[in-house]
Amino acid sequence: MNPAIAAVTGSTIRALHAKRRPTSINLGIGEPTLRPNIAHFEAATRWVGENGCRYSTNIGDADLREAIAAKYAYPTLAHADNVCITTGSQEAVYVAMRTLLDPARDEVLVVEPAFPVYVKIAQIEGVRCNRVAIDPQTRDAFDAETILAAVTPATRLVVICSPCNPTGRVIAQATVRRIAEGLLARGGEPVYVLHDEIYRELVYTDDVGEFGKVYPYTISINSLSKSNALTGLRLGWMMAPAEIMPQFVKMHGWLTSCASTYAMHVAMEVFRTNDLGAHLPWYVSQRARVLEALRASGLDYVEPEGGFYACVRVGDASMDTLAFAEALIDERDVVAIPGHIFSRTMAGWLRTSFVGEIAQITEAYDRIANFAAERGTLAMTRR
Amino acid sequence: MNPAIAAVTGSTIRALHAKRRPTSINLGIGEPTLRPNIAHFEAATRWVGENGCRYSTNIGDADLREAIAAKYAYPTLAHADNVCITTGSQEAVYVAMRTLLDPARDEVLVVEPAFPVYVKIAQIEGVRCNRVAIDPQTRDAFDAETILAAVTPATRLVVICSPCNPTGRVIAQATVRRIAEGLLARGGEPVYVLHDEIYRELVYTDDVGEFGKVYPYTISINSLSKSNALTGLRLGWMMAPAEIMPQFVKMHGWLTSCASTYAMHVAMEVFRTNDLGAHLPWYVSQRARVLEALRASGLDYVEPEGGFYACVRVGDASMDTLAFAEALIDERDVVAIPGHIFSRTMAGWLRTSFVGEIAQITEAYDRIANFAAERGTLAMTRR
Repeated sequence: MNPAIAAVTGSTIRALHAKRRPTSINLGIGEPTLRPNIAHFEAATRWVGENGCRYSTNIGDADLREAIAAKYAYPTLAHADNVCITTGSQEAVYVAMRTLLDPARDEVLVVEPAFPVYVKIAQIEGVRCNRVAIDPQTRDAFDAETILAAVTPATRLVVICSPCNPTGRVIAQATVRRIAEGLLARGGEPVYVLHDEIYRELVYTDDVGEFGKVYPYTISINSLSKSNALTGLRLGWMMAPAEIMPQFVKMHGWLTSCASTYAMHVAMEVFRTNDLGAHLPWYVSQRARVLEALRASGLDYVEPEGGFYACVRVGDASMDTLAFAEALIDERDVVAIPGHIFSRTMAGWLRTSFVGEIAQITEAYDRIANFAAERGTLAMTRR
Repeated sequence: MNPAIAAVTGSTIRALHAKRRPTSINLGIGEPTLRPNIAHFEAATRWVGENGCRYSTNIGDADLREAIAAKYAYPTLAHADNVCITTGSQEAVYVAMRTLLDPARDEVLVVEPAFPVYVKIAQIEGVRCNRVAIDPQTRDAFDAETILAAVTPATRLVVICSPCNPTGRVIAQATVRRIAEGLLARGGEPVYVLHDEIYRELVYTDDVGEFGKVYPYTISINSLSKSNALTGLRLGWMMAPAEIMPQFVKMHGWLTSCASTYAMHVAMEVFRTNDLGAHLPWYVSQRARVLEALRASGLDYVEPEGGFYACVRVGDASMDTLAFAEALIDERDVVAIPGHIFSRTMAGWLRTSFVGEIAQITEAYDRIANFAAERGTLAMTRR
């Protein structure tokens, strides 16, 4: 057995889900409950009926890659050859980290709070991982000076997930510019930024920073999973500068050959019909109602600027957040994700997703607030 | 850049395909040209219309896993929990090799001729790879004594692809039993056998050896890509003993989360309608016509017992087989894959696939025979 794999743990999120009952209110879930547009599947099915379902090239269908490059129009990622279609965004993250980082000398800097996968992949690959944890309620959600101060001479990659899973905060344009300047000023071998933009289409602010717009060493990763309720389709992509893309495509080829031809045709329909923002209006109105429910609950929370999560505070940094989340399932039938898995600054927090029925979500926030009050942990929060 | 990735080369097969012209007769192709049954896609599309397209568990849909376990009924792999659904069989091979092998101490033995991916993955992972190359025309295509003699104390995994890509030869039941006995008699830590069975449904012999039937340390890998013309669906699976499956599922989870929910529903339709052997009659009749064409061509060939490849001899072991294959495209407009990429014993051979029109295939064999005759390489073969 490979000891690096044996040492890494599985997903806490999936383990908590396994504890849920049929009656549970599930705020743990990391995917939309909206239905995808079935017309896209019907169109892809017709295409298969006429053309079969054969391998694509390793890099993926040229028309889809062109549509993606054109949609985002990042100056150094503007051509179809800057786009590789992957099995969801997760394979893209794996390929980028695996290919770019030399375990013998390189270090990755993960800006937290963040989805645990980046740290897990670094651990599996034996790559040194430096984590910079930012307070979820800080004024600047991705404080540039804090991030730049954490870059070391060995840093070869900085991972930033914005809109952020779990906090829902969005990196500002000025922050992106400041980080880009800082990294460019450093000289020497370039430091790449892996910008995970998987919640990019679900934003509630006009100030949305995108590394691809200003930083030439950007790897932008995205998918249709969240925007179009297509988590089960496993269709994502990576955009990368020309000098490294061939290496990414090679690794992707040896890992999975190519992405699904069927899924690529569903994706092409999404782009062709300009359907990427189809679900945004629902999230905008859902978020407004969620903010009302949060205010009514009395809980301290992070106001989401993107995505479909709201983080709520249930204790201070010293609390056993996993034990709280487990007791919350057992005793109050509410599933929420303990914040400590996303960063040390989120001990005492829960990540709640707001993809379900608003009445259920409101009820769940009340149960969480009462449970924390009864356990006496709430008194320790800032309220 | 990770030097292990930089050092590995891309796919020779894909590179040769890139040279082909619209007029080329393509015998290089490694996928069916038959159409998949569109009814399975229509059923999966209806399912998505009713249920959405959400993540599955990491291991995959339980109904599909149960159908697969029941279909093959391998004694130690007989339960749904022995099956993990993957993004094609290639991800399954990667996960198995990556998870099982410790680069610091383990060695993998690849039985060749074989598809190059196993050696490439070992190279990427820095795992010592021992290759045992068998003559494609030997009486026993997978000579047990030769294979057992190549097992060292460090061998932790033996990779066997049968029905074989490229030779089309099928391992006999008695050979499987003999190898299993030999590995069990060895004592110490178990040696796993990765039996790549991706051509399992396309066989032209009754004597089909399956490690899953007799050897408790079998990892069986398969897919619907070849049997049901679904290469572009990216749906495969690995079957593994209970003691290692949780580690495989964990690695698979961090790599790609889960396989496509849509693809799993297409696969469920294939099993539900008992459609796994639907294309076999076509291949049986195609193979008979191909054997006629081969005999007429005068070429020396390996008679395929499974799959859809026939290997033909165009020179001796000292020939530059890649140069021959490239010249064959440039000068005779025929794409075929040089045998040396599958094993040192196949220098001087070409892999041809027989998935296309029989008239074209016949024409291609004639061109190959004439080209080899003109270049004077044929005189060196055994004919």
